[in-house]
Amino acid sequence: MSAPAPRSPFAASVLTLYPEMFPGPLGLSLSGRALAEGLWSLEALDIRAHATGRHRNVDDTPAGGGPGMVMRADVVARAIDAASPAGDTRPRILMSPRGRPLDQRRVRDLVEGPGALILCGRFEGVDERVIKARGLEEISIGDYVLSGGELGAMVLLDAVVRLLPGVMGAADSGSEESFEGGLLEYPHYTRPREWEGRSIPPTLLSGDHAAIARWRRTEAERITRERRPDLLDR
Amino acid sequence: MSAPAPRSPFAASVLTLYPEMFPGPLGLSLSGRALAEGLWSLEALDIRAHATGRHRNVDDTPAGGGPGMVMRADVVARAIDAASPAGDTRPRILMSPRGRPLDQRRVRDLVEGPGALILCGRFEGVDERVIKARGLEEISIGDYVLSGGELGAMVLLDAVVRLLPGVMGAADSGSEESFEGGLLEYPHYTRPREWEGRSIPPTLLSGDHAAIARWRRTEAERITRERRPDLLDR
Repeated sequence: MSAPAPRSPFAASVLTLYPEMFPGPLGLSLSGRALAEGLWSLEALDIRAHATGRHRNVDDTPAGGGPGMVMRADVVARAIDAASPAGDTRPRILMSPRGRPLDQRRVRDLVEGPGALILCGRFEGVDERVIKARGLEEISIGDYVLSGGELGAMVLLDAVVRLLPGVMGAADSGSEESFEGGLLEYPHYTRPREWEGRSIPPTLLSGDHAAIARWRRTEAERITRERRPDLLDR
Repeated sequence: MSAPAPRSPFAASVLTLYPEMFPGPLGLSLSGRALAEGLWSLEALDIRAHATGRHRNVDDTPAGGGPGMVMRADVVARAIDAASPAGDTRPRILMSPRGRPLDQRRVRDLVEGPGALILCGRFEGVDERVIKARGLEEISIGDYVLSGGELGAMVLLDAVVRLLPGVMGAADSGSEESFEGGLLEYPHYTRPREWEGRSIPPTLLSGDHAAIARWRRTEAERITRERRPDLLDR
């Protein structure tokens, strides 16, 4: 029997106009410790390094008119090609409000893979031709508009990194959380037992593990029904 | 005629175990310039400053057992009360995967208000009693789990700040974006006119403004139908 081949750590390459934003929050806490331990890698690459011309423009006015600026296909393509040479099997993701909503299932898929190349959109958007030509997968982190894709990239990476092998302790296995099992999480309580006249529900203090499990399941279902009936229909 | 009363800038107070994460990405780019110009204010307050006892614990084991730790009601309440004295009319928000999904409508409501007090959850969650006792509004930025609420707070603030008066130029009014009008955004193109054998759609180069508007509307509808039929049902 041979030992399983060591798995390469998850490799993230982020293409951005603000490389100085990284690692930022990802350099602290859980993801920061994992980064320091080599459980994943992160490079932030400046798209502007691939601009040409005297002004090194990365954007231009939209064809057909309208507000804002559009990121140029040629500049973005050069940045992608430099970061992701032939043979790179990592998915190429564009953070964009037009994308498919990120969910915990896509996060788990990414955890199983070799990493991700993430392009952070800015301005009004990215020239459609480079999205098609380079096979970018558009992902949205939610139904709101941000000033750029950088925070989206950080959100995606944080969600992925915490699930990488070795990052969370066994005690925080991530198996009893919101969206796992299709339900929102049940309410939590801890000491003190009485606080401002409010008590911990007696069942949780009963020591009856079956009753506790039933209470939690019922509460998770109630909260999901109240707040997110759409999750129950899936 | 008297001039309208000057509007106080949007005041954000973030309660976190990682105050050093802030302003982080919010200190750069659009939100960073707006912060430097005084168009909004941000304070990051350390929850741990309100812990007591020799170990200054902010968390404890969950009542009823199970993995992880729960943030204590008493510590969190003290942190909230210190940051939000009587008369503070700002909404009190808890970033949590169990919350109501953030959308552009809630963002616009927050833009109209005095600011926000934002509690960043960590560990398994926050003791339910303080959520009830302090009237916290639980908001989720999406259907995935993060290592903490800090990135969620940044996402919420970035979405709000870009829409504050004076932050974006008139040319980027934010009126022709995804989710405004209930549709995802149409595809964008810019120079060069030909790139890797791909052309800009001729309509966009026609100069016929009515035809361009029709093309964009049709494309926005097509993309929304393909990717997010749920938006059309709302």
